[in-house]
Amino acid sequence: MNSKDDSQSARRFWNSKTKALIPYVPGEQPRDRIRIKLNTNENPYAPAPEVMSALAEINSAELRLYPDPGSLELRQAISAYFGCKTDEVFVGNGSDEVLAMAFQAFFEPTGSGPAVQAITFPDVTYSFYLVYARYYNLNWRTIPLDENFQVPLSAFASPSGGIILANPNAPTGIALSLDAIAWLAGQDRNRLIIVDEAYVDFAEASAVALLGEYDNLLIIQTLSKSRALAGLRLGYALGAPALIEALERVRDSFNSYTVDRLAQTAGKAAFEASAWFEQSRRRIIASREKLADELRERHFTVLPSSANFLFVSPPGRSGLDFYRGLRQAGILVRHFKQSRVDAYVRISIGTEDDMDTLVRVIDEMLL
Amino acid sequence: MNSKDDSQSARRFWNSKTKALIPYVPGEQPRDRIRIKLNTNENPYAPAPEVMSALAEINSAELRLYPDPGSLELRQAISAYFGCKTDEVFVGNGSDEVLAMAFQAFFEPTGSGPAVQAITFPDVTYSFYLVYARYYNLNWRTIPLDENFQVPLSAFASPSGGIILANPNAPTGIALSLDAIAWLAGQDRNRLIIVDEAYVDFAEASAVALLGEYDNLLIIQTLSKSRALAGLRLGYALGAPALIEALERVRDSFNSYTVDRLAQTAGKAAFEASAWFEQSRRRIIASREKLADELRERHFTVLPSSANFLFVSPPGRSGLDFYRGLRQAGILVRHFKQSRVDAYVRISIGTEDDMDTLVRVIDEMLL
Repeated sequence: MNSKDDSQSARRFWNSKTKALIPYVPGEQPRDRIRIKLNTNENPYAPAPEVMSALAEINSAELRLYPDPGSLELRQAISAYFGCKTDEVFVGNGSDEVLAMAFQAFFEPTGSGPAVQAITFPDVTYSFYLVYARYYNLNWRTIPLDENFQVPLSAFASPSGGIILANPNAPTGIALSLDAIAWLAGQDRNRLIIVDEAYVDFAEASAVALLGEYDNLLIIQTLSKSRALAGLRLGYALGAPALIEALERVRDSFNSYTVDRLAQTAGKAAFEASAWFEQSRRRIIASREKLADELRERHFTVLPSSANFLFVSPPGRSGLDFYRGLRQAGILVRHFKQSRVDAYVRISIGTEDDMDTLVRVIDEMLL
Repeated sequence: MNSKDDSQSARRFWNSKTKALIPYVPGEQPRDRIRIKLNTNENPYAPAPEVMSALAEINSAELRLYPDPGSLELRQAISAYFGCKTDEVFVGNGSDEVLAMAFQAFFEPTGSGPAVQAITFPDVTYSFYLVYARYYNLNWRTIPLDENFQVPLSAFASPSGGIILANPNAPTGIALSLDAIAWLAGQDRNRLIIVDEAYVDFAEASAVALLGEYDNLLIIQTLSKSRALAGLRLGYALGAPALIEALERVRDSFNSYTVDRLAQTAGKAAFEASAWFEQSRRRIIASREKLADELRERHFTVLPSSANFLFVSPPGRSGLDFYRGLRQAGILVRHFKQSRVDAYVRISIGTEDDMDTLVRVIDEMLL
């Protein structure tokens, strides 16, 4: 359509921020032949039958109408599950969107005003936090995980403009205890802590139990992992009503209807599917523990995981080399080219069969 | 969950921007008994049968996997429809999201640097532009429509940091000609013009025809109106590849997967449903013209509409009074409490039956 030879000349319209951007790089969605995809922490099992039924029953004619911008029925299902009030729940188009809105709503951008305190997050964590901190012009500071990849609590307790923690952390899989979160929240009740619990359903406990005591906690979860709905884009935040109201204000300055009708319906059904949910997460946890044992037997370093993935370092070869060997064999895992963790790969927990194949392939590689 | 008496105390975590926000207010999604909903310009007809079939054929098990972040197949369907290249198409979670990303990608925020030129848009137009201009810290200036609610081209031609025009305009329904858009684009080829064509399928021509000549045009359209998929949240932008790349950079700094699997599949089918599309938009245009004639016969002022709505002022009563009278009778239209247009209401075009009922109710009101 554009007849200009120089298709890049329209770059003159990029504003200074767009030119300077370093966007997030998601795990690849492979188009070539991959037998087993273990690189983006998807659930290996199909969503709950209740979700399938709910989607099948939708009257497609209703798609002509805008969705409920407040996603009321979905929020009611979520609040019923957690035993909280509907006005303590915010839903969005994936937990990335909810995180982005939280960064916009609560953390003070640097600018012409007085200096603002840095927000803090670990040096090894979900890489989107750094993207958001830069994109929303925040003052930020990373705090190194300790030599065992544990979050150093006392360093996070020192003064800051806010804290963002993935718990369990990614890509390590290591979880902080509820006591640790509570201790940190109590250090400064005027400092907001965002707890990104994307993987919490594979861990021991959620900080949702702390919300009654600490109104400086905002907890963000997703339906992409434990509820097997990554393809539908649904995430949510739980916290004090005024925190939820702030997220709504940001949403209504951006896109009034972020969650479509099909996603609202399917999400509601997912929260009502408690038998499937319990069974599927237990199954994944069992596979994780079995794989961890098998890899430790083969002299891998395996970090203690509370998530649906393992962060492992193979014996006698680099992380990148191991990643490439698996890829050659049709198994896609994730390797991060980042100092401190480049000896590791992150392996999403697949089906029992996937894990058996993985171990067989590893045994062949190690021969 | 929160045991604090003062549920508002968590407002202390709002940053200064959140406190100052004036969010967009969407048309109400009524919960009480409304017989006929004509307030948010939805399509009165169910989506194309091809969309229904495509949704019915989806293997729900695939929802466990993330969608293609690049929405490639959907973009291929859109580019095939318009005869452009895939890298000239960007898709997002509704055209509001695409608009918000365009404001972020191309218009220079005010700040500590040198003064930036104001972007311009009409005083009477889609109210989200003002919300975005404020939210993204832009310097902005509105230009009054003339006394006939026409866009004053020469005023827009004067120097500015960018232009945003809804064409056809909302809530007036009045369209600029392609010649007018081309003339404006030619005035300064280093100034970007965003043309929001949400309603263009009910008008004579799209500015897509101008993209080969002017790389300073970015055209934004939606599947919410002419394709009857407001409930699915799908919008897209068409323009030079470097403009599309900028939108991708913004998206990947915010949410890598904005368009879910079901929406990608349904959107693709919608672009292949050409017979349904042609028939449904012609039917709506015919209903619009019939209603316009009937209201003019009843001494309404009716602006010449190229959209799927009419902007009308009733004889002998205020716009608000007319809105309330219709609401009482179970018909919901939209009234804007804004000077210059508060004598008007915006009526979405419904089915032929809806329009007959509307005229009957109006005749009873005018008795």
